[in-house]
Formats: sequence, structure tokens, C-alpha cells
Amino acid sequence: MQLTCDRALFSAAFQTAASAVPARTPKDVLRNVYMHLGTGGVEVVGTDQEVAIRYKVDGVTTTSTGEALLPTARVSPILRELQDEQFEIVVEEQSLMIKAASSQFRLSSEDPRDFPPVPEFDATDYYRIPANVFRQIIRRTSFATDVESTRYALGGLLLEFDEGKVTVAATDSRRLAVATAACETEGSPKAPEKTTVVPTRAMALLERSIDGSEEFVDVAVRENDVLMRSGRCVIYSRLVEGRFPKYRDVIPQSGSISIMQTAGPFHAAVRQAQIVTDEESRGVDFTFDKAKLTMSSRAQDIGESKIELPIEYDHEEIKITFDPRYVADFLKVLTPETLVELQLISAEHAAVFRVEDSYTYVIMPLSQSR
Amino acid sequence: MQLTCDRALFSAAFQTAASAVPARTPKDVLRNVYMHLGTGGVEVVGTDQEVAIRYKVDGVTTTSTGEALLPTARVSPILRELQDEQFEIVVEEQSLMIKAASSQFRLSSEDPRDFPPVPEFDATDYYRIPANVFRQIIRRTSFATDVESTRYALGGLLLEFDEGKVTVAATDSRRLAVATAACETEGSPKAPEKTTVVPTRAMALLERSIDGSEEFVDVAVRENDVLMRSGRCVIYSRLVEGRFPKYRDVIPQSGSISIMQTAGPFHAAVRQAQIVTDEESRGVDFTFDKAKLTMSSRAQDIGESKIELPIEYDHEEIKITFDPRYVADFLKVLTPETLVELQLISAEHAAVFRVEDSYTYVIMPLSQSR
Repeated sequence: MQLTCDRALFSAAFQTAASAVPARTPKDVLRNVYMHLGTGGVEVVGTDQEVAIRYKVDGVTTTSTGEALLPTARVSPILRELQDEQFEIVVEEQSLMIKAASSQFRLSSEDPRDFPPVPEFDATDYYRIPANVFRQIIRRTSFATDVESTRYALGGLLLEFDEGKVTVAATDSRRLAVATAACETEGSPKAPEKTTVVPTRAMALLERSIDGSEEFVDVAVRENDVLMRSGRCVIYSRLVEGRFPKYRDVIPQSGSISIMQTAGPFHAAVRQAQIVTDEESRGVDFTFDKAKLTMSSRAQDIGESKIELPIEYDHEEIKITFDPRYVADFLKVLTPETLVELQLISAEHAAVFRVEDSYTYVIMPLSQSR
Repeated sequence: MQLTCDRALFSAAFQTAASAVPARTPKDVLRNVYMHLGTGGVEVVGTDQEVAIRYKVDGVTTTSTGEALLPTARVSPILRELQDEQFEIVVEEQSLMIKAASSQFRLSSEDPRDFPPVPEFDATDYYRIPANVFRQIIRRTSFATDVESTRYALGGLLLEFDEGKVTVAATDSRRLAVATAACETEGSPKAPEKTTVVPTRAMALLERSIDGSEEFVDVAVRENDVLMRSGRCVIYSRLVEGRFPKYRDVIPQSGSISIMQTAGPFHAAVRQAQIVTDEESRGVDFTFDKAKLTMSSRAQDIGESKIELPIEYDHEEIKITFDPRYVADFLKVLTPETLVELQLISAEHAAVFRVEDSYTYVIMPLSQSR
């Protein structure tokens, strides 16, 4: 088996597949990237058996078919250090050669038949979402998950498809992020019976694999897993078991007070307010009063701070205590010029941050201790 | 005590002093940056009691004199997050205020009298070295130290001053780096009786503090410590105790074979040769033969590699085994176009790499096991 590869293209494909290869695993064969040469072209695959990436490689010339395992820990630095435009891979019995003009590497290689099978994207009924929009809604929600939780569903993103719309929700039970986008269908995908919760790691891999050249992400939800395709890349993931919180119940339907703010200056002020807090006193008091938001914090033995921000506001004074990290997490994923609407009911009710109609973020306030 | 500060200038000074503040210390007071307002201006000081940085702050307006401690863990993020061009520091009993247009921080502050005294640069007899040259010779030598060694002297850089020349040497006993530069004197500094070995950390702090605006580094060596001044920054360091190896004895006086190479392509080839090595088989065979250098390596269960590089060479074939990391460490600190002369005697003798007359690097070859 012999193939000639464009180094830049093969390297990009390999590194994408390698991002699903586990750093530590008791199963040695998973430390490899699997390569398949078929009539449909060349594919490279990496997996930890929960999540897998399958990538169609461009720029390969070959007349061979077959399969091989590429040891990630060696092939990855070889592709990084080679300076040639092209190189050759020759697969032999139990070993593989990587050859460039003045470099030659012979690597031991394991049996490709030991590599676990990874499903292909063969659905004819699926949802189709513009790639840049899907990338944005992953960014706007995935930070709110809790991958450490024993409630496994909190470690994933909920995907809902309904009436030409996809909704992605994430929560760690103290805050909630929900983003929606328009969505087309190909064929007639059926909304799955169970809730679809995709592990944060699979969504992060998808987000990273979208490099701007893809137009769409196609999503096929199955009973226990999901396949997502963007450009040359297919990500397979098992779904997370467990009940996802009824997130719609958490969003207050009407805030009595509405305050508009620009993300950039708000984020800068919150970052300042975060400094004088510690593990024991996480809370920062947000006081909304005539034309001014004052953020004040105090931490034993450290000190106190007071940060002011001009706002348009002419209601009664309202003081609500937040963990400032939760506010900062939200503002960080927005461009500085984004307009944010903050809806408040009282110091005891959840506060809602909205960006247009498509992005909602809810924070439970802390109880005021002082 | 009250002062108005230019944020950018104060922040740069503070971060430089803070780079000497220990990450962990049982002595709480060392977690602070010490600030002194005297008739000579404002200085900030950080120290772990082995090494200290003293920095003269520019852009401060004040009529006060006195001293205060700034808690590094809080003041550092405040200076990073403030967006104002100017801010104010007000020092009160046991606390300090940092005030900007819409931000106000009050921090508890410890007693500045508890801060250990840090010597000033008050020498009148000292050596003077062009700053950019000194920076280069620190970079070219400090990677060769061994800070983990129980032979403490190997964890430092040897400084020798002799006849208008400074020599810096570093070794971990398997390789040696020696760089020299011209050096002036102010007053009549006496060469110290003991060897001058400066901890790698102090030299790294000095290297980082040189930002290109300084013309000279002044060095005053004393019996047990050294003071180095560059621009507004003074670095104090205790000297390392212990005997530094007689490094001149290690440098072969005449190599029988001389090979010229360009650093960039040589480095690229060595990085490739490094890939197929492991803890057990570190060595790469460097075979010099007619017009060609071949680097070959082999590691059990992993594979083998062969990297070729064209060279000008018409002697007998010579094969010498190096730890490629040692070769790469040296090539990494050179600009790619640097011409390197490699001098060889035999496979058993130390190999010498030279850059002009001012930089010498010696590697002991490994014994050939195959």
C-alpha cells in the first residue's frame, strides 16, 4: 500500500482526527489514527470510543486500497517537522514508512483490524444548520455545562429540533444558556423520542473542526448516538444518558425591569469587580440605581472594591448579588459591541440576559449575606 | 501618602518587580511588592530573599514620602484590568486605596517595616556591558545549566571578567556553553577572589528585564552577591556556593575536522532526527561522509529514522553519537542564518560547535551501543 500526500492537507486532516485520540487509555490501539484507502478516497479516523472524528483527506495520489494504523505520538511530530511539500507513505507488514526528499521514518505499526469500527455519516434524513451560526451557538452555550457533575446530563449540550429551528441549551444548575438558530431539513428527519444530550467534548471538537470553509453542519440524531458532518469532517458521538433539567421552566417569562448594556464595557467592569473576591465570598453586589450600576465586593482580610458603570435606568434601586464569574463567562463569548438586555424581577428571582431573540442566559442570584 | 501614577508605566514597573515575588513562600510578607517613595523618586521591589528586583518607576506625581506593601495577587490583576490612563494610590494605616475614574479598591496592607532590606546599586567600581550583547550571551548559555543538580554550581552561570572581556559559562557536566563579549570598566572594579556563579533564575530575570531601551548592563560583583543594573531596573542576587567545573579543560584545543553548517536547516534536520528516540535510546548517530551528514536513530518497538543533510565534507567517514536534544538546544538560540563551525576529533572526543570567536558549545558524545 503506497500513497503520495500533500503535506499541508494531510497534516491538517491528521491533526483533526488526532484531536479525538485519548491522551491516556488502557486500550493501546486507540493511541493510533486509523487510515482507510477506499474507492471513495482516503479517510483518517481518531476515537476514544465515546467520540470519534472521521476526516476525508484531500491531495492524496494512490492506486492502493487497504487500511493502516498511524501511531499518533510519532506521526504527529513527523508531519509538523517535515518541510517538504509532498511525502510518501508506504505501508508494509507490521510497519510503515514515511518518506520525504531527505528524511525517512520506519515505524512499527499495529494491526488495523483491531481498531474499533466507527459509524459513517450515511443518513438521508438529517438537519442542516449554517456552519458559522452553529459554531456561534456552541460557543454561546458550552461554557455553561458542568462536566464534573455526577448528573451526567449537565456535562452535555441539549439539542432540540422543532419547526425549522434548532435550540441548544446548557446548564450547571446555577446558570443556563440557551441559543437558537434557523435550521433546514434534508429528507424527513424525525425528532428523536429521547432528549438529545451531546457531550461537551464532542461539541468542542465540532466547533474546532469548523474552519470557515464549510457552509453547513449536517446533524443526524439516532437512538443512542449522533453524527455531525461539516465539510470533510464527520464527528460521531454517543449521547449522554440521564435527564436534562426542564430548562424552559427556569426562564422567567417576564422581567419587570429591562436594562440595555454594551458587552465590552460591562465585561471590563465585571472583570474588575471579580478581583476582590475569594472562595468564601464569591458574591458581588450589583446595585442598579439612577443612571448607574455599582458593583461592590468585600472579602475578609483582602479588602473591598466598588466599580461603577453608567447605565440608562430610572426605576427603584435594586440590589442583586451574582457570582461575577457567571456574568463574565457570558460576556466573554460576545463581541464587545454586542447589545445585551438584562431583565430583572427582584433580588431573589433569576436574572435574564438576552441578545436579540436568539440567545438567552439565566443566572440564579446568590443570597445577600451582608 | 498619596501618589498619582501613569498606569502603563507603573504597571510595567510593578510586573517586573512582581516577577521576583515567589509563587509559594512560608514568609507572607514576601508575597508583596514593596514600594518606596523617597527624594530620589519611587521604587518598587520584589524578592524571594535569594534574588531581588528593584525598579525605579517613572510617571508618578507625589509630594509624599514613605513606604507601603502592595499585595501582588490583587494589585497585579487590578493594574491589568484598569483601563484608565492614570490612577491614584492612597496609603493609609493598614490599608491602601487604588482609585481610578469609576473604580475604587481598598486593600488590606501589611507593615512595610517587615519587608527585608534589599541592597541598592551603590557601587562606583563596576563592569559595563552593552545590554543587547549581554542579553544574547545569557540566552546562549543559560539553557546549558542544570538547576536540579545537587552540585549547586551547575545551577548557575559563571561570570568572569578579564582584560576588557566578560565570559559567561554554563554546564550540566555533559555539555558546556561559553560566550564572551567586550566589556568596559567604570572606576576600577577588582576581579573577585572567589568564582562568581549567578543563579540561572537571576540571569533569566535580568534577560527579561532588558526591553531594548537600555544601553548597558552594569555589573558589580561583591563577596557573596552581585548587583546588575539595566536602565531603571536593578537585580540583586546571592552568588551560588560551590566549585564550578574547570570548564577550559573541557574544550578540545584543536579539532582535526571542521564542518561549516547553517543553523536553520541543521536545526530542522535535528528536530526530525529527535522524533524516533525514547528514554532508553536517546542517541542519534551523526555520520559525516562525502558531502552528506546522515542522522540515524532506532528505538525499540517504535521504529527507526534516517535524515540527510548536504554538507561540505571530504574527509574520512566519521560517525559520532549525540543526544539530539543537546544539539537542538544550541541551534534553537541561534538565528536561522547563523554560520556554525563544527569541530570533530573522533567519535570518542568532545565535539565543539563554534559561532565566530565569541560562542563555543561543547557536547560529550554518547558511547555507540550498536
